[in-house]
Amino acid sequence: MEDNIFQLSYALDTFYFLVCGALVMWMAAGFAMLESGLVRSKNTTEILLKNVALFAVACTMYMVCGYSIMYGGGDFTAFLSGLAADGVAGADEPATYAPSADFFFQVVFVATAMSIVSGAVAERMKLWAFLAFAVVMTGIIYPLEGSWTWGGMPVFGMYTLGDLGFSDFAGSGIVHMAGAAAALAGVILLGARKGKYGPQGQAQAIPGANLPLATLGTFILWMGWFGFNGGSVLATATVESANSVAVVFLNTNAAASGGLIAALLVAKLMFGKADLTMALNGALAGLVAITAEPSTPTALQATLFGGLGGVLVVFSIIGLDKLKIDDPVGAISVHGVVGLLGLLLVPVTNDGSSFSGQLIGAATIFGWVFAASFATWFVLKMVMGIRVSEEEEYEGVDLAECGMEAYPEFVSAK
Amino acid sequence: MEDNIFQLSYALDTFYFLVCGALVMWMAAGFAMLESGLVRSKNTTEILLKNVALFAVACTMYMVCGYSIMYGGGDFTAFLSGLAADGVAGADEPATYAPSADFFFQVVFVATAMSIVSGAVAERMKLWAFLAFAVVMTGIIYPLEGSWTWGGMPVFGMYTLGDLGFSDFAGSGIVHMAGAAAALAGVILLGARKGKYGPQGQAQAIPGANLPLATLGTFILWMGWFGFNGGSVLATATVESANSVAVVFLNTNAAASGGLIAALLVAKLMFGKADLTMALNGALAGLVAITAEPSTPTALQATLFGGLGGVLVVFSIIGLDKLKIDDPVGAISVHGVVGLLGLLLVPVTNDGSSFSGQLIGAATIFGWVFAASFATWFVLKMVMGIRVSEEEEYEGVDLAECGMEAYPEFVSAK
Amino acid sequence: MEDNIFQLSYALDTFYFLVCGALVMWMAAGFAMLESGLVRSKNTTEILLKNVALFAVACTMYMVCGYSIMYGGGDFTAFLSGLAADGVAGADEPATYAPSADFFFQVVFVATAMSIVSGAVAERMKLWAFLAFAVVMTGIIYPLEGSWTWGGMPVFGMYTLGDLGFSDFAGSGIVHMAGAAAALAGVILLGARKGKYGPQGQAQAIPGANLPLATLGTFILWMGWFGFNGGSVLATATVESANSVAVVFLNTNAAASGGLIAALLVAKLMFGKADLTMALNGALAGLVAITAEPSTPTALQATLFGGLGGVLVVFSIIGLDKLKIDDPVGAISVHGVVGLLGLLLVPVTNDGSSFSGQLIGAATIFGWVFAASFATWFVLKMVMGIRVSEEEEYEGVDLAECGMEAYPEFVSAK
Repeated sequence: MEDNIFQLSYALDTFYFLVCGALVMWMAAGFAMLESGLVRSKNTTEILLKNVALFAVACTMYMVCGYSIMYGGGDFTAFLSGLAADGVAGADEPATYAPSADFFFQVVFVATAMSIVSGAVAERMKLWAFLAFAVVMTGIIYPLEGSWTWGGMPVFGMYTLGDLGFSDFAGSGIVHMAGAAAALAGVILLGARKGKYGPQGQAQAIPGANLPLATLGTFILWMGWFGFNGGSVLATATVESANSVAVVFLNTNAAASGGLIAALLVAKLMFGKADLTMALNGALAGLVAITAEPSTPTALQATLFGGLGGVLVVFSIIGLDKLKIDDPVGAISVHGVVGLLGLLLVPVTNDGSSFSGQLIGAATIFGWVFAASFATWFVLKMVMGIRVSEEEEYEGVDLAECGMEAYPEFVSAK
Repeated sequence: MEDNIFQLSYALDTFYFLVCGALVMWMAAGFAMLESGLVRSKNTTEILLKNVALFAVACTMYMVCGYSIMYGGGDFTAFLSGLAADGVAGADEPATYAPSADFFFQVVFVATAMSIVSGAVAERMKLWAFLAFAVVMTGIIYPLEGSWTWGGMPVFGMYTLGDLGFSDFAGSGIVHMAGAAAALAGVILLGARKGKYGPQGQAQAIPGANLPLATLGTFILWMGWFGFNGGSVLATATVESANSVAVVFLNTNAAASGGLIAALLVAKLMFGKADLTMALNGALAGLVAITAEPSTPTALQATLFGGLGGVLVVFSIIGLDKLKIDDPVGAISVHGVVGLLGLLLVPVTNDGSSFSGQLIGAATIFGWVFAASFATWFVLKMVMGIRVSEEEEYEGVDLAECGMEAYPEFVSAK
Repeated sequence: MEDNIFQLSYALDTFYFLVCGALVMWMAAGFAMLESGLVRSKNTTEILLKNVALFAVACTMYMVCGYSIMYGGGDFTAFLSGLAADGVAGADEPATYAPSADFFFQVVFVATAMSIVSGAVAERMKLWAFLAFAVVMTGIIYPLEGSWTWGGMPVFGMYTLGDLGFSDFAGSGIVHMAGAAAALAGVILLGARKGKYGPQGQAQAIPGANLPLATLGTFILWMGWFGFNGGSVLATATVESANSVAVVFLNTNAAASGGLIAALLVAKLMFGKADLTMALNGALAGLVAITAEPSTPTALQATLFGGLGGVLVVFSIIGLDKLKIDDPVGAISVHGVVGLLGLLLVPVTNDGSSFSGQLIGAATIFGWVFAASFATWFVLKMVMGIRVSEEEEYEGVDLAECGMEAYPEFVSAK
């Protein structure tokens, strides 16, 4: 009978991981829709291809080596022997849920980190350079960084980041800020889109071609985030863990709501209009802000934390434009700047973390991912080039890279 | 050991609520896609913003006061103390599932009710007036109305609506008809879109700009409705409740199918064409019709009940146009007229309800929501105005309200 | 206490079926988006209507007779008595999960098979002929074929296909190849679209009108496939079954990734461009290839099997065009040719099957479905015609069949 109870608990936790993982996988569609809605129509096919291909690359590379690096102590024989039909290596023994479910849940996280990059470098980066970067990012850069907290690997001497007081529940820093750091390195080496900044340096609005897609993408991400944060409780088969998962769902939703409302109001005050894209980025900012600690705030705190994210993202987007860091979809602001905010908010409600620990962790993660990404982008720039030609950029990368238009029948005004 | 079994049951019921709640949240995306597909391109950004912003407003207002009104007996201290990290107030003690999961499941329902409104008032209502109404609707009007049945609060003397023989399983009346009543009040005060009715009063077709989005929205709603109805069993961890949830999924699907087929055939007979938008509204009508009682009909009955809804919605849409009640997406017909049908079908298969009880309940809900909404819209009309100017309507509300077009690159024929 | 454990197990398995079934239902939206993105804008409304209507027809016909044929031994009284509120007939007694959940999970499979057909016959088939075929396919052709393996019905003397060594875990053959066989029969009788093949027989590219929709559809299908394959384990409430479900999720994802990467690379080598539609078809091919046996391969094998599917689908699409079999979305290649590959890969990792058994099963399924479909299409061609007039095809079937355009405001270049 005790065995039966164990089996049910194992089965419920496994199913919970799989459902949450499927929701996180769904976020890949959200990024694809968000980004394809926010770029111009001439660059839409290519951003779609980047999004779907990076997901496939991430899943494959994480299987080949990423998972072993992050959770297996770099024991690659574990991969070869362990990725057999009875599961994957890396789970604690005795496992309380299926090892394969653990892999499935983790693999969709690395894809999320990579999805953040594609938006920031949109409309001028070469497709194959991007995919080459995805191989390195999802196979090595992210897994190594993730191992320092979630994988229990030492980073400073014998200390993990967790040992130093760093806490990041579902990845405001480990996933979102990491993705943004990689994106920032790419954007710096890549430069701004032609025509983005005028002769006096003023930013020119380049409107996205399809706002229903961008809105759909945001809804998808919002929904998928329930799996992203909810699954990060890592168990649900007890009263305590079930309560925690429920609180996480509630707070995740509350933070998104707070972020949307705050960004909408701030943008209205600043620009005089109800700015849909700012509102969408506000919701996403709220989600990123709560991701570092969705289990300890009250619902009201979660709403406020999300709201802070929503305010911050508007100013960050404006600020990055002043610095001529051209990010077509605002990904660096949403995931990077607000990701840092999320990390710094953790100690407000979670006694197990400290501001110093959060700062050390944030600096370590950012430093590593930015430096390693910069080096990788730099090598790619030398070897194959990372930017399309001026003519290709003018014509649109869709024809140059993919040989097909996203909307071949619709007459364009641009 | 008994405790372990309790814990597993608690965990399973909690997870079931959360999954169903996430599906209902997803319906917000469905409404956004449906409505943005059925309006003209010049009004698309604004309807997208309304849909995503109303969801955020609903979630916030329901947290601030709505949930306390509907389930807490108006005890607002419960909110302040209860919405802490260990859950929200309002659940029965001892709880059989996480209190926060209960809140999460309920909060997405109020958003659904509000989503119904946005479609009906599309293309001419001011954005901020709409959001102001959303504050009142989701914070007070809906929660009070919902308390009379689901919250166990008395409405007539010491009687709840349930005491009077009223039964509404998942909300044909409490959610859908209520949303439609609020919409109807708004539409009456707002008036029809310019050009909708010709000089002889004949309705002019104003085609939606993007039918793939409308179809996607319908599929999303169809899927989300499994959570809406399935979660309303309120438990799944026993054989009896699991059977009930399964029947509800089956019947929900059957009713949507019946509604679609019926509306498709009726529209073909009447107009000579296979009308996609009528077919989509037929599916939604089937879903609304079964929502008041999806657990007792047989699959065949569910199909037929859905089919009745599909027939009714076609005639209702035509009828409302004759009355010059201009509802761009047919929301009042789908959710209001068919919502009433759903309530009246309950006694056919559920002995615990009576026709008189259903009529009393329907009249009470409609009366309150319509009157309170009318008063709210009226005040808003006096204070800030609820309709955009003629010129803004002609130009499209997107530029006037949001300062951006939904499809800025595509050349429009209109 | 033992009873409590049974109840929990029953409840968990039921919930698992319902969640997986909802994901498979979601695949209907995926097909709708994929197909509406890959046809021309003038044929979009009609393909949307076909997709949503075929789902409703499938659900209704499977309830009326399909389920009884496939799992009830053709006992139709079982339908009339059994589809009552306490469930549907056909489940094993004593049931270990809700009978209605079984029906729900099976009914969305038949819809999937039928969805495959709509894409292949797009842009020139009459709507009502298509729906008439859907009635026969989902009510009789598919259920009979499915009964020979999953229903345990004899097909050769007293032998089921399973008795002959045939194994098809989730339906590479029974669902996907069957759908493709029905489509092939239709395409042969229907002929190619006007202008598809030039005077020398060379295929002309007819680009899809909306690639974001096609990409969204692929993501939806990818996500829904977790339910399709994962649910086909048929239980999850034990350690063994939970492990199996987790492996299936992992492998399904890996195969899709492998398929996408392989097709992307092959297309790049052959055409010199990164072909988005080939990449999408590669992902779908990977999914089809793993569907016949997702539980026994290692993750690496699953990736490779998916990759084989991705390579094969590119050559198959080119090959069918050489044969002037005009399939606008590549459905026959993805689901038929790669479905066969999937069947033939089963014995590589599953000792319980044999190549001869797989060949016998594939030939039997293909033979029956192709012949029965051909006969049905032929009768429909005689009785009502299956192809629209040349003028209607030129103008687009949307106006002819549905009386409305999918994108009425956007100026078309074609």
